[in-house]
Amino acid sequence: MPSYTAPVKDMQFVLNEVLNISKYSNMPGYSEASPDLVAAILEEGGKFCENEIAPLNLSGDHEGCVRHDDGSVTTPKGFKAAYDLFVESGWTGLTSPEEFGGQGLPHVLGFCLEEMMASSNMAFAMYPGLSAGARASIELEGTDEQKNRWLPKMVEGVWTGTMNLTEPHCGTDLGLLRTKAEPNDDGSYAITGTKIFISAGEHDMSENIVHLVLARLPDAPKGVKGISLFIVPKFDVNEDGSLGDRNSLVCGSIEEKMGIHGNSTCVMNYDGAKGYLLGEPHKGLRAMFIMMNAARIGVAVQGYAQSEVAYQNAVDYANDRIQGRALTGPKAEDKAADPIIVHPDVRRMLMNARSFNEAARASAMWCALLIDLSHNSESEEEREWAADIVSVLTPVMKGVFTDRGFEYAASSQQVFGGHGYISEWGMEQFVRDARITQIYEGANGIQALDLVGRKLGANGGRAIQAFFKLVGRFLSDNKDNEKLADFVAPLSAALSDLQGATMWLMQNGMANPDNAGAGSTPYMHMMGHVLLGYQWAQMAKIAQDQLDAGTSDPTFYENKVITGRYYMKKRLPETKALLAELEAGADDVMALEAANF
Amino acid sequence: MPSYTAPVKDMQFVLNEVLNISKYSNMPGYSEASPDLVAAILEEGGKFCENEIAPLNLSGDHEGCVRHDDGSVTTPKGFKAAYDLFVESGWTGLTSPEEFGGQGLPHVLGFCLEEMMASSNMAFAMYPGLSAGARASIELEGTDEQKNRWLPKMVEGVWTGTMNLTEPHCGTDLGLLRTKAEPNDDGSYAITGTKIFISAGEHDMSENIVHLVLARLPDAPKGVKGISLFIVPKFDVNEDGSLGDRNSLVCGSIEEKMGIHGNSTCVMNYDGAKGYLLGEPHKGLRAMFIMMNAARIGVAVQGYAQSEVAYQNAVDYANDRIQGRALTGPKAEDKAADPIIVHPDVRRMLMNARSFNEAARASAMWCALLIDLSHNSESEEEREWAADIVSVLTPVMKGVFTDRGFEYAASSQQVFGGHGYISEWGMEQFVRDARITQIYEGANGIQALDLVGRKLGANGGRAIQAFFKLVGRFLSDNKDNEKLADFVAPLSAALSDLQGATMWLMQNGMANPDNAGAGSTPYMHMMGHVLLGYQWAQMAKIAQDQLDAGTSDPTFYENKVITGRYYMKKRLPETKALLAELEAGADDVMALEAANF
Repeated sequence: MPSYTAPVKDMQFVLNEVLNISKYSNMPGYSEASPDLVAAILEEGGKFCENEIAPLNLSGDHEGCVRHDDGSVTTPKGFKAAYDLFVESGWTGLTSPEEFGGQGLPHVLGFCLEEMMASSNMAFAMYPGLSAGARASIELEGTDEQKNRWLPKMVEGVWTGTMNLTEPHCGTDLGLLRTKAEPNDDGSYAITGTKIFISAGEHDMSENIVHLVLARLPDAPKGVKGISLFIVPKFDVNEDGSLGDRNSLVCGSIEEKMGIHGNSTCVMNYDGAKGYLLGEPHKGLRAMFIMMNAARIGVAVQGYAQSEVAYQNAVDYANDRIQGRALTGPKAEDKAADPIIVHPDVRRMLMNARSFNEAARASAMWCALLIDLSHNSESEEEREWAADIVSVLTPVMKGVFTDRGFEYAASSQQVFGGHGYISEWGMEQFVRDARITQIYEGANGIQALDLVGRKLGANGGRAIQAFFKLVGRFLSDNKDNEKLADFVAPLSAALSDLQGATMWLMQNGMANPDNAGAGSTPYMHMMGHVLLGYQWAQMAKIAQDQLDAGTSDPTFYENKVITGRYYMKKRLPETKALLAELEAGADDVMALEAANF
Repeated sequence: MPSYTAPVKDMQFVLNEVLNISKYSNMPGYSEASPDLVAAILEEGGKFCENEIAPLNLSGDHEGCVRHDDGSVTTPKGFKAAYDLFVESGWTGLTSPEEFGGQGLPHVLGFCLEEMMASSNMAFAMYPGLSAGARASIELEGTDEQKNRWLPKMVEGVWTGTMNLTEPHCGTDLGLLRTKAEPNDDGSYAITGTKIFISAGEHDMSENIVHLVLARLPDAPKGVKGISLFIVPKFDVNEDGSLGDRNSLVCGSIEEKMGIHGNSTCVMNYDGAKGYLLGEPHKGLRAMFIMMNAARIGVAVQGYAQSEVAYQNAVDYANDRIQGRALTGPKAEDKAADPIIVHPDVRRMLMNARSFNEAARASAMWCALLIDLSHNSESEEEREWAADIVSVLTPVMKGVFTDRGFEYAASSQQVFGGHGYISEWGMEQFVRDARITQIYEGANGIQALDLVGRKLGANGGRAIQAFFKLVGRFLSDNKDNEKLADFVAPLSAALSDLQGATMWLMQNGMANPDNAGAGSTPYMHMMGHVLLGYQWAQMAKIAQDQLDAGTSDPTFYENKVITGRYYMKKRLPETKALLAELEAGADDVMALEAANF
């Protein structure tokens, strides 16, 4: 069975040394987040993940969820008890506002918990994960009455939530949506329609499930401008907060799928179910997109979380498994063969994953800080700047971190040879589970299009220019730092490639939008490289400073420099090939007649 | 349910126009392979695959194989009937020698059948596939008595065969092998040991199963020089050819695995089972490697076969599914949305797969011709030359075609969005099935090491120089052909990168073998690009000539040029990034202490 160790030390490095969160004590939550409290939360959260939910990952995959004839769903053995413990320990409200019973701690801490949960048991983590998304929408769009009615129990975790967007004939293109909402006499609405791919749509872990459902009002304009959002609870809630009538909605079936078997992916049938309008009529997508943007970053975290746990297990196996001898002569002479970690090609796979995981973690935690800054900075300029950077980072992290997460889950599986293909080792589950992250919350091609078609050009390119400026400033500040030469030169080259690509898109994407479409995925991956390279350059500088200052823990910082240098020299040059692909344009992509494929 | 259409026309194009097999009528089998016979075989083989085994792929995956308490194994519903039909139709002996009942047709035809079978139902195809490998070993190493005893029934298909290499503690490093062979009084041996990952190790499709088992004789030297090969039949065979005693070997369990559920992957327990020495004592690996090299090319075929069938289904979906509008304005104005094939990023995924599939097919079929030439050419020089090229192509095709096969099975799944993750669409099965091809018959890292550590340097680099010469000759022959400029320039650049990489390895791999190890996978993929680019350049030239001559089927040839140009401009530049990775050397790969990972 695979194992998991929460990367608490690395998270502390990012929080305390890279992000230096103590600087932000003027922001809500940050003043409470003392180094001691942070340490305690990471330790305790890590233990919960390592001891309570990681052991249920393989069995949960094997067992899956079971739908009964009455539409009820049983989650895999142990899931409910673990969830109860999760709720009792107060984890569901970690970053929620104190007024609804949360602890109001910074998002950077929430991301750490999300990563640890996704690494240990992604299917389990999705139950509270989806719930958090639904909660955030009610927080943003709900009336005071709605907030008070729904949020406390959701923050407490005794109720969970879901997002209901997709229908059989429409996923990406929500304009095609058909679910109807008809006014009832009491001000509520009757919701009728079928939703598919509803994660955590029905289960046995919470007392109530608060579905957020996209539907059309009778007078709705066609297309995406006629979609409203509704709160549609499994059980209605009385004035006094007690549970009322069972609503007329039911899980019609559970999808048989490639992975995340421990999470119930439901077809949900709404048959005149009672719903409450959330936010303004016809403005449902706005709220849904706020939720979705948060969810996209959450999925990015799942991406590297799967790579991280797969990497950890591949390291253990590579150190244990003896097979063959090192190319430079035997290393474990007392054994019949050397551990396979002596082989450069095995290390190549491990270093690819490691050098991605650590930089992806740093990126995501930085993004979490930026989210907090975008809401709570005292400076309007900084709020806008932070929101800009988050807006361009979101699709990049979702697309790139999940593409790489899947790739490195698979290469970590590869380290196991034939055993990696066998279910009991658990490696193939990481690959199957990671695969969904490239698909849901907007398939990665949609992320790339969002980046190139929407985010790049917004406000005259303000956001991407802010990102370039940030990286450029680091480069100019460190251009004479000889100890960082291995970082500055490759990052500078990659940034130049990315800027060249941006220029190319500006010059060629307007004249022919297909050029932008054809170049969107290569562009997204180029930006991913620059983002990760930028994180590495920053981390290497901090590590180098620590080493120069005679740190008491040189190994940790030396490893940072080694891992970062690997990324800069081995992975970053991919921007060259991506730029060539982008600059080759759309002609050869579009030339074949659709009927001739 | 996914569908499959055998690419008969494309195979005929490769056979008749690219390879021009009619030129080789002086070789055994080729004189019989008239265009009419070839057409009939491809048509009939295609129909068998499309109608008989493709429909069993999804159900076979879902149902899997069942082991009963007595060790017997039942294959999924329909498998046995389909296999019986396969045998009755004479497919098992297509390329086998006529003296043992085969049809003696060229390997190029055998590869076509292998591809079609692997695309339609890889788990099914493995039963006859493994059998063919075992048969080839007996053909090469067996005494006349052994050949006459075992081959006719195996060629007929009523007996199948297996390969038994791996043990729980040893896969790649066969020197660690423990299975024992002790002489019996009658000249046979008693085989005792446990073998794992034995594909088709036990099943209900054939009357007998002929296991080829690696084991050690009592006086065997340690390591790989003390391994012998044995024929260990499920049922012994009497003098008159009738089945004799049930041997003391049993399937101990079936592995639960990521995919190929329709194939029984067995743990095989040999408990003093009666075996017959095949070939010389302690020389078992030689025979096994002959078999394995053939098997590796077979696995390369599986790689692009999975990409091909996944691509076909992605094309259908992309033409059917309507979602969103083309970036350049609506294309299907009568519909609520455009089919998603209008989106450049969807086409990018389809063109990646298509441009790989067609060139991989051409490469593999060329390799099949080279195998026939290496055995049967009248010129010793040509036999040696062909064997050289095959020797370097084998690891490249196995490693690259399966890495890309998996990648494009996954990107074809991606075209389906959320539906791709749902089992009933069948796309996720292609991904899970394709995944094994990167692992078995030598994990791809082993292929890369075989290429760089063994094949490159053999005979003073004769084989790789022969390959360079071939590509170089094409380039110089066509350097002034303006219509091929889009092919010649990128191929020339890629070849130059590959030659640079070869030089770098020669200069740096001797001094530090870890440099060769760390660069082996990038090198293998560079060579894959040059191989595929070379195929495209040749095919484009043929297609361009046809177009210039006013062919009656311009669409087919135009599509060849379009698809090839896509590969040259979009994919081939990856050699730049791979070269940078290779030239970055081993230092950063090996720097981290094993304990610090």
